[in-house]
Amino acid sequence: MKSTVLASTVLLVVGGIAWNAQSQSKTSGSETLLKMEAEFEKTTADRGFEGFMSYFADDSADLPNGGAIVSGKENIRQSEGPWPADISLTWTPVHADMAASGDLGYTYGTFVFKGNDKDGNPITRYGKYATVWKKQKDGTWKVAMDMGNSSPGPN
Amino acid sequence: MKSTVLASTVLLVVGGIAWNAQSQSKTSGSETLLKMEAEFEKTTADRGFEGFMSYFADDSADLPNGGAIVSGKENIRQSEGPWPADISLTWTPVHADMAASGDLGYTYGTFVFKGNDKDGNPITRYGKYATVWKKQKDGTWKVAMDMGNSSPGPN
Repeated sequence: MKSTVLASTVLLVVGGIAWNAQSQSKTSGSETLLKMEAEFEKTTADRGFEGFMSYFADDSADLPNGGAIVSGKENIRQSEGPWPADISLTWTPVHADMAASGDLGYTYGTFVFKGNDKDGNPITRYGKYATVWKKQKDGTWKVAMDMGNSSPGPN
Repeated sequence: MKSTVLASTVLLVVGGIAWNAQSQSKTSGSETLLKMEAEFEKTTADRGFEGFMSYFADDSADLPNGGAIVSGKENIRQSEGPWPADISLTWTPVHADMAASGDLGYTYGTFVFKGNDKDGNPITRYGKYATVWKKQKDGTWKVAMDMGNSSPGPN
């Protein structure tokens, strides 16, 4: 009986440590993704379209609303850029989750696009995005897939 | 010299085996995702909206084009369903990739929606989707996030 209680206690303790380690690992994975998203956004604010593109993997894909799938960083650059200087693209992640192996994760959230229409009038567009992040062979993190669609308002 | 050649050979062989195992594992991960997508689509064809919803995790999120983020399976069910009986939703994955740990993966591709407008006239809409798949605690795979947007045509 004693040995059963002891075994159960050991199992509970070991289980508790394992659960705690997994829980911490998950928090850390999400935090890693959110930190990268913040850096991604800052680089875009600082350097515009080329800053934005610098986060895309060579074999990434873009799924633009109203367009066809664009595969490959250079094709995305041709298709999406360059941006006019007066564009502002900001975003707010709502959720981030990382695989247990720490090599693949995703985020989604909302974005605000500010620019000018063809007549030079300021426009604001609201939307949502999903981004898949993948650790590259050289250890850096890049965007593997980026997708956006429209929202009726900022939330 | 001999030992260096031998060590290099051993490294090459071991490296080759490791590379091969990783390569096979990746193929298998994508194949797992594509198999699930095919089952997901068949269940939707067979059982309509409830078949579609049966693949969503309790804590999943839907990012509908033109709407706000919907979080939680029950909220998605309320927001997206039920579908009229004459709806057809079919999709074709273009890409699938799995984390090394085999617990998180994603797919993206194109979809075709067929239904009727409010006057009963048949309509066909083309779009793109991204789906994040996550292995649940009970070992089953569910959709963690689903997002769609519009395309000008079937590709």
